[in-house]
This record gives sequence, C-alpha cells and structure tokens, in this order.
Amino acid sequence: MDTEEFRRRGKEMVDFVADYMENLEERHVYPDVEPGYLHTLIPTEAPVEPESYEDIIKDVERVIMPGITHWHSPYFYAYFPAASSYPAMLGDMLSGAIGCIGFSWAASPACTELETVMLDWLGKMLQLPESFLAGTSGHGGGVIQGTASEATLMSLLAARCKAIRRVQSINPEKSESEILSKLVAYTSEQFCATLGTTPSCAFDHITELGPICNEENMWMHIDAAYAGSAFICPEFRPLLNGVEFADSFNMNAHKWLLVNFDCSTMWVKQRQDMIGAFKVDPLYLKHENQESGLVTDYRHWQIPLGRRFRALKMWFVFRMYGLNGLQAHIRKQVQLAKEFESLVRADKRFEICAEVIMGLVCFRLKGSNELNQKLLKSITKNREIHLVPCHLSGRFVLRLAICARPTESRHIQQAWRHITQLTFELLQDGCH
Amino acid sequence: MDTEEFRRRGKEMVDFVADYMENLEERHVYPDVEPGYLHTLIPTEAPVEPESYEDIIKDVERVIMPGITHWHSPYFYAYFPAASSYPAMLGDMLSGAIGCIGFSWAASPACTELETVMLDWLGKMLQLPESFLAGTSGHGGGVIQGTASEATLMSLLAARCKAIRRVQSINPEKSESEILSKLVAYTSEQFCATLGTTPSCAFDHITELGPICNEENMWMHIDAAYAGSAFICPEFRPLLNGVEFADSFNMNAHKWLLVNFDCSTMWVKQRQDMIGAFKVDPLYLKHENQESGLVTDYRHWQIPLGRRFRALKMWFVFRMYGLNGLQAHIRKQVQLAKEFESLVRADKRFEICAEVIMGLVCFRLKGSNELNQKLLKSITKNREIHLVPCHLSGRFVLRLAICARPTESRHIQQAWRHITQLTFELLQDGCH
Repeated sequence: MDTEEFRRRGKEMVDFVADYMENLEERHVYPDVEPGYLHTLIPTEAPVEPESYEDIIKDVERVIMPGITHWHSPYFYAYFPAASSYPAMLGDMLSGAIGCIGFSWAASPACTELETVMLDWLGKMLQLPESFLAGTSGHGGGVIQGTASEATLMSLLAARCKAIRRVQSINPEKSESEILSKLVAYTSEQFCATLGTTPSCAFDHITELGPICNEENMWMHIDAAYAGSAFICPEFRPLLNGVEFADSFNMNAHKWLLVNFDCSTMWVKQRQDMIGAFKVDPLYLKHENQESGLVTDYRHWQIPLGRRFRALKMWFVFRMYGLNGLQAHIRKQVQLAKEFESLVRADKRFEICAEVIMGLVCFRLKGSNELNQKLLKSITKNREIHLVPCHLSGRFVLRLAICARPTESRHIQQAWRHITQLTFELLQDGCH
Repeated sequence: MDTEEFRRRGKEMVDFVADYMENLEERHVYPDVEPGYLHTLIPTEAPVEPESYEDIIKDVERVIMPGITHWHSPYFYAYFPAASSYPAMLGDMLSGAIGCIGFSWAASPACTELETVMLDWLGKMLQLPESFLAGTSGHGGGVIQGTASEATLMSLLAARCKAIRRVQSINPEKSESEILSKLVAYTSEQFCATLGTTPSCAFDHITELGPICNEENMWMHIDAAYAGSAFICPEFRPLLNGVEFADSFNMNAHKWLLVNFDCSTMWVKQRQDMIGAFKVDPLYLKHENQESGLVTDYRHWQIPLGRRFRALKMWFVFRMYGLNGLQAHIRKQVQLAKEFESLVRADKRFEICAEVIMGLVCFRLKGSNELNQKLLKSITKNREIHLVPCHLSGRFVLRLAICARPTESRHIQQAWRHITQLTFELLQDGCH
C-alpha cells in the first residue's frame, strides 16, 4: 500500500469508524458466538500472495463484528468504562504515524517531555500535593503505565527494593532472600489502599491508613483506577484526602477520562525510588544529556523497555474538552447512575446493595442468589444490555456501570424497562 | 467533537499523516532541542474551556515536531527498527474505535480468537514446532505481549512458579522463600538465550544449550526480539534450529515485521505453565464459557489485566503483504545492510566489527575509542543521520541498523558519503 492508497483507505476507515460509532446502539451489545467460532471463518494459514484491501474490510463485518462485545454501546454496563473519544482517537492516529519508541529522552524528547507535562496538568486537575508533581525541578512526577496492574506491580517492586536496602543498611550481613521472606504487604480485600473498588466502588479510609503507614515507614500505594477521574470535580475531591500520606498514586485516565486505552497515570513522590529499583543502562541507550540530571528516561519507571507516545492523546483530549468538559462528562455519568438508582429504589421487588457514589449501581432482586443468577442469565442471553455480577457479603449482586460516552437518560430508562420485563417473565415462571 | 466533525478532522489527520510520511526525509532525523524545551512552549495547566482543533493541530508542528526523533526517516539507523506500515495503522484505527478490553474471552471473543489464530499463522510462517501452536486443541499457543521485557518476565515468573511447585511436591516442608533463595537463572551477556542481540545481533547456540536445559529440567526461554522476524525466510530459518528444546519463545513483530508497536509475540509449549502461575478470577470476570475448557482468557498470560485488540493490525499486515511481501521486506533490508557493509569494507580506514547476518552493521574507524566517540558525536550533532554506539570486547563501535521501511540504496549511499565526509574533517583536525 503506497501513500496515495493510504490517503484513500484512511479516509474510508474514518467513515467506517464514524458509521460504527453512530450506529452502535442498533447492534446487539453482546455477541452470540460459541468458543472457536472464528476458526471456522478464516484460513488456518497466512496468505502467500497479498490480498486486496476490499477483501479485508469486508471480512471485518463477516468475521470480527459477530464476535465483538461492544464496549462503546450505550447499552454496555459491564465491568467499568473503557474511555473513548474522538480527540483521543485522532491523537492516537498521530502517535501511530510518528511511531517513536520513547524509552529514553533522546529517543524522542517530545514523547518524554509532553508526558511529564501532561501528568503535571492532570495532577493539578486532581489537586495532588505539589510533591507529586515534576514541575521543572521537583523530586516527584508522573508516568503513563499500561494498566493499574502494572502501576501496582511497580510500586510493590519499588517498595520492596527500598525496604531491602533499608534493612541491609542496618544489618549488612542479612541476605536479600532472608529479608524478602520477612517482608509483609498489607492489603484490603482488593489489593492495596483502594479508592473505588471494582465490585462495589467502595472507598478505603486513607486518612486513617496514611498516618499509620508513615509512622511505620511503610510504602503506601493508592489505587483509584476507576474513581480517580472523578476527583477533578471539587465535590468528589474530598474522597482523595489523605493522598498526602501516600508514596505513589494511580488512576486510569483510560477508564473514565475520555483517553482511550491504554493510559494508566501514576505519580510518585520520589522518582529516585522508582529509578533506583529499575535502572537499565546499556551503552546503546545512553545519550549525552543523561548525565545532566535534567532529563527523564522513562524506561527506568516501568517494566517494558519500549513505550508508545501516549501523551499525545491526553493532550488532544484535555485541550478539546477543557477541564469544564471533562467535569461535565463525569457529572453526567454520575447523574445517570443516580437516575438508575432511583428507578431501582422505586420498585419494591429490588434493593440497592451499596451506596451509589459515582457511576456504579449495585442492585439485586430481593430473594435468593439463585433468583438473581437466573435474572442475569436471562439478561445476558437477550443481549440487549450487558451487565456483570459481583459478590457482596456472600450475596450475588448485579452491577450496572455507566460506561459509554454517548449513554443518555433514554438508554437508562430502556435498560430498566428491559430488566423489569425479564423480571416479570422470571417471576411468572415461579422460579423464586 | 461530534461524529460529523470527526469525519472531517479524521480525514484531515489521514492527510497530515500521509504528508508526514511522504516528506520525512526532508526533516532532520534527530532533534535540536535542550532538555526542558517543551515546558517553555505550552501552558503549565490544562485549559478550563475547550480549545479549537485548529489550535491543537498547529501546535503539533510548533511544539511536538521540533522534539521528535524521526524513527521512520530513511536516515534513522539507531537502535533496532520500530515497525510501521499503512495496513498496520489502518488496523490500529479500527482497534481504537472498537476499543474493547480483551481480558477475557467474553469481554470480546473476536479479540481473543483472532489473536490465537494470528499467533498460529505467524508460528507457521516461522515453522515453529507444532507443540507451540494452539490449533483447536493444542496445549501450547501464542499471546501478544507489549514488549520483549514483559515476555521475558512472564517466562521467568512461570519458570519460577513451576520450579517452586516441583521442589515443594518432593519436599513439602520447604517454604517458598527458602526455595526461591536457591533458584538460579542462567543467562548470556544479554539475559536468557538470545537470537540476535541488541549490541551486535549475535546468536547463542541453542542447539547446544537446549539439550542441557531439557536434561536438567530447566525452563528455556529464547528471545529473538529483532532477528525473529527474519526466520520467516527459509534462508534464515536454520538459525532458529533448537527452538524445539525451548519452553517459551518470543520475537517482536513490532520490530521487523511491519506491525506497529506494540506487538511482542510469544509462544509457550504448555499454556498451563502460564495460567498456573497467574490465574486471576474474581466473579465480575467470570463468564459461562470459561468452565468448558474451550476458551482462552488472556489475562492469565500477562502482567496487565486489560489489553487492546492488537491482533487486528497483524491481520491487516499479513493479508495485505502476504508471506511473499513480508519476506521481500526482510530481504531488502538485509541487502541494504550488505550494501553498507561493502562500502565500509572498501574503505581501508574502517573495519567491520561483527559478522553482518541481518540488518545491522557494526563498524568503526581503525584507531582509538576516543576517535570513534568523536566521529559519533559529529554525526549526532549534524543530525543528517542517526546512529547509536555499542561496546564490543571493550571497543567503542558504531551500529548502523536498517530501520525505516522506505529506506533505499540511495539513502545508504548518502549516509556513507556523509560519514566519510565527517571522517575526513575529523582526521583533518588531527585528533587521532
């Protein structure tokens, strides 16, 4: 494919994408395929000769779409949101074309520097303490990780490395594995101190945990993967109080802040704690400016060596929405969750199972777990809306998370009508 | 930005990307900025109100481009290639729009199944032993990791978990940390058994290492991050002989196989070894088909929970190039390296420092390390071509890797003219 053909096919793809987004609610949100369905639709080997683009794009509808769970359908209420916005997609197209691998400052200075500034922008939106910001001479700073799992692993490894060094500085005769076997990580039911857990969007009391961690010289990592985005709104910011006690903090801009996956934003107070644990410096990655102390080489902050230019999509999103636009997105989705909550509360057959603070509603039919399992099975089978369950205190609970950007009140109302219709059928059958 | 505006801006971005790629060789390949340059060009905080798209796209040229190292310029010869092709970019646009998070089969069956089939396609192109393929009922199979570092970490963790369980099955009284402290990982100068190292593209003798690993019941991981792509050509495939002894193998399709970053392809013989070490199963991620044994949930195969639909770009590339087209790309780049090698060999002032097997030429001026450091400094300062160095047996060596897809003979010839011109100036100054 030469550049001229790319101009043509690229524009066709823009229309394909726009059409897909525009007509998403007409598709079943959940696929109706059996495991292995795709094997039967495509060859078992790659073609030897090139195929035409027309054949490939035709196969997208024939092979791919039947097996897609449509995360950006306004009827998708499962898991937590995966962010999606047009500005992010445009930023990602540009990132794909520039295609730099930003493992060091020299490998593409803009890639590193825009990331540092974007993490400062977001840190300020979140009103993080100054100590987490890079500025031009700070000891802290932010980094984009792929996922919250990686951010948590990084903080765990950095904490472990720091603890081992501290013990060895006092007891130089102790071996690393001896110390390692004595280290303890304290967690809640979800690992680490969590603001907005996945099952029920629950919040740990970090203003209580924080001082204890500081007194005991323990590394405190706060994971606010989903809820973190909401802290850009003043009315939610109090939930982040106590972050000043933490050593590291992370939230997924790719969940609720309109920046397409992957973009898990993480801040540390002492960048030396990260770099000290992970420094990788072969000659072919060294560069002149490295020794000046002025530059950030992000390869020391993460497990992978290579990294994409992900700050571009943040830049596009933050500028095209502005803080006001981002806050409006969060508030609208919380409002939709409240609307759904009130629908549930008005129906005596149902109960709300956890306080609705943000965009997640945990609810169930009063009655047995089996009854609720049947209801969910029926919802999944019908494929008009998509939910997943959770366990709360031994009870089987349905989770409805406001996910897609285009979700409106009418979708929520339609979802509730659908749930009550299936409930009616279920109770008619006398299965409770 | 609504869908109509996205149609317009998206098409403008396609042209922006096409223009960028088409005129890339007119830009200096290496930027001329000082650390911190970007801070002075943009505000210290995100805007409160939305900005216009025009302002943002203008800033791409003003703020971003001056700080870009252009990895896809035909004058970029540093590190190893970062793959880039138009079909991959189109596949990525589609992936961004679908925007599913493929942590489980149910989260988007097509995302999981296309990945399994694409890894089988590529495994067959590489003539991997049948035991590494998934097929419809195999015990092995492939997965896309972000980078080779992650693939190596995964194999290390899987190997560690397997070894600990084996020892505990014989000595149940031993603690995990006790066993851990006795475990040994054998590596070459580059970690693990490597086919095509980064400094010099050297090859370990895996037909010798393999049987020893198997006899001693040691996990063998082979990293062929760069060179692996070349094994799709019959003339290079013998270098992969011995892979039949390995437990895991990985190569980066995002380096040399025209699939944009990230796409580090990894295969294991026993998927249970991976899954056993990493299984994560909260209720909200469970799905009906999971218990059937028929489905793959890739979250068990990797550190992150979330994952993008990266198999799409592989599918687009493999089909639009065909095996023949992919082989032609590899062969052309190897040929260009040979051409550069012969230019170096014809100049008595220079020496070749490692056998040129693939797309990398290691060379230096006969003389001191200092002289070669000066030459490289002069090359970097002039910004017409971009190289990085390596150390080979204590000698400072220049690496020229054929990287960008559009690189042609005339670029290589021009690069050599430039190097000899700078050499002439350097030797004139009498600094040797």
